[in-house]
Amino acid sequence: MTLTLTALPDIPLIRPGDDLGAILLAALAKAGLFLMDGDVLVLAQKIVSKAEGRMVNLTQVTPSPRAIELAVQVEKDARFVELVLQESLEVLRTRPGTLIVEHRRGFICANAGIDHSNVEGSWGNPDDWVLLLPVDADASAERIRRCVAKGSSLKLGVMIIDSHGRAWRNGVVGVCIGLAGLPALVDLRGEPDMLGFRLRITQVATADELAAGASLLMGQTAEGTPAIHVRGFPYPLRESYLGELIRSKETDLFR
Amino acid sequence: MTLTLTALPDIPLIRPGDDLGAILLAALAKAGLFLMDGDVLVLAQKIVSKAEGRMVNLTQVTPSPRAIELAVQVEKDARFVELVLQESLEVLRTRPGTLIVEHRRGFICANAGIDHSNVEGSWGNPDDWVLLLPVDADASAERIRRCVAKGSSLKLGVMIIDSHGRAWRNGVVGVCIGLAGLPALVDLRGEPDMLGFRLRITQVATADELAAGASLLMGQTAEGTPAIHVRGFPYPLRESYLGELIRSKETDLFR
Repeated sequence: MTLTLTALPDIPLIRPGDDLGAILLAALAKAGLFLMDGDVLVLAQKIVSKAEGRMVNLTQVTPSPRAIELAVQVEKDARFVELVLQESLEVLRTRPGTLIVEHRRGFICANAGIDHSNVEGSWGNPDDWVLLLPVDADASAERIRRCVAKGSSLKLGVMIIDSHGRAWRNGVVGVCIGLAGLPALVDLRGEPDMLGFRLRITQVATADELAAGASLLMGQTAEGTPAIHVRGFPYPLRESYLGELIRSKETDLFR
Repeated sequence: MTLTLTALPDIPLIRPGDDLGAILLAALAKAGLFLMDGDVLVLAQKIVSKAEGRMVNLTQVTPSPRAIELAVQVEKDARFVELVLQESLEVLRTRPGTLIVEHRRGFICANAGIDHSNVEGSWGNPDDWVLLLPVDADASAERIRRCVAKGSSLKLGVMIIDSHGRAWRNGVVGVCIGLAGLPALVDLRGEPDMLGFRLRITQVATADELAAGASLLMGQTAEGTPAIHVRGFPYPLRESYLGELIRSKETDLFR
C-alpha cells in the first residue's frame, strides 16, 4: 500500500480571475500525471484566495473602535484587526503579537487566516495588501473539482489547506479548510481489531492527516509548489464538508 | 518533487523482546525497498511499546486515593487511572469518559497514551492488559535507527507516532512522540519569499506533518501496517528530539 504525493511543477503566480482548474490540468499534464479515480488534489489556500480576488488593500479599511482597542492589545495594525474581526465569529485569545479567533467557517486559527506576506495588489504599496481566506472553501473545492473532472464521471477529491498553529505543540501544520469529494473523517468506531476485540472509539481526521502530509511538500517555498497530486488515498472517496472537522463548542474543553 | 509513503508488508504481531530493527529490515527486503540516505521509517507506538515490554496487567495495580477519586469523575477503571497518573506530570481536563493529561515526556494527550485495545498479555484475562507508551521514545527511535543502519553511515530518520485528539477539531491525527535523525521543526523564519518580501515568522512542525501523513496508511487496521517507509522527505535530515515540538507553558494559551 503506497501513498504518493507529487508537487505539481510550474504553477504560475495566480491572479484574480485565473482559471485554477485549467492551470491545474496544464500542470498535471506537464508532470505526466493523468487523473484516475481516487486521486486527490491538495491546494494551498493562497492560490485559491488569489484566484477568487480575496485581496484587500488596508488603505480601504476603516477600523471600528473595537478593532482599534484590540489592535493596541495585540500590537497589530488596526485596519488588519478590523478585517480579522469581520472574518471571525469570536475572539478566543489575545496577547501581544497573537490574535486567535474562531473563523466564520468555524475553525480556530490566528488572524482569521489573513495573510500579509507575498500578496501583490494591482496598485498602491505592496505592503498594504492582505489576503483573506476563500469565502467558502468547501464551495471553492467543489468548483475546482468540477472543472478538473471536465464533466466526466471521474471520482476525485479536492482539498484546500492552510497552515495552523496548535495548542500545546510548537510549529504549524497543514490542515483542511475546505474540501470536496474526500472524507473529512473516517469512523473506525466499533470495527474489530486483529485479535477480535472491539477497537477503541476512533474517528480519524483523514483530511487533516492528508493536509499535513501534503503541506510538507509545499512548505519549502512561499508559493513555489502550492498544488499537490495525491495517489493512493487509502479510503473510499465520498461527499464531505469542513463542518465534520469542527469540534462542537459543547465537546471542546479547550476554548 | 515526490513524497512516497509505503506501508511495509507482513509485520508480525510484536512481542516483548522482539528485535524491531531486524523485523523492519526483513519487511523492507520483502517490499523490495533498499534504504537510501534521507529515508525515514515511521513506526506506530504500539509495536515499539510491545517490543519494549510496556504491557501492564491491571490486576497488579493498586490505585491511590487520588486515582480512585478521579476514576469516579471520568468513569474509568481506578487501576487504569492510577497508571495514567503515574505516566503524567499534570491533569489538564477531566469529564466523564475523558482524561487529558500532560504525559511525562511533555506532550498533552488523553489517558497518557495508555491503550486498552488489542493488547495481548502472556497470562490472565486479555481484558486486564494495557499498554504504556515507551519510556523514552526518542531513545527508542535512536536504538532502532542504529539497528536498521547496521553500523553503516546511512543517513536515516526514525520516528515513533501515536494518534492524538486535538483542541477545536474532531478526529485524531498521527503525531510524533519520539524521533531520531529527522527535524522535528524546520525554521522558515526570515527566509525571503518569491516576491522578495520577508516571509512571516513560521516554524513548520515537519515531524508532525509526516506523522499525520504516515498515519493515514496505518489507520485502516488496528495493527496491520504499523511501519511506513518514507522516501522524499523534503528537508535535510539532522539530529532532533521530541522536546522541540513541545510548546512551553509560558507560550501556551490553551492549557
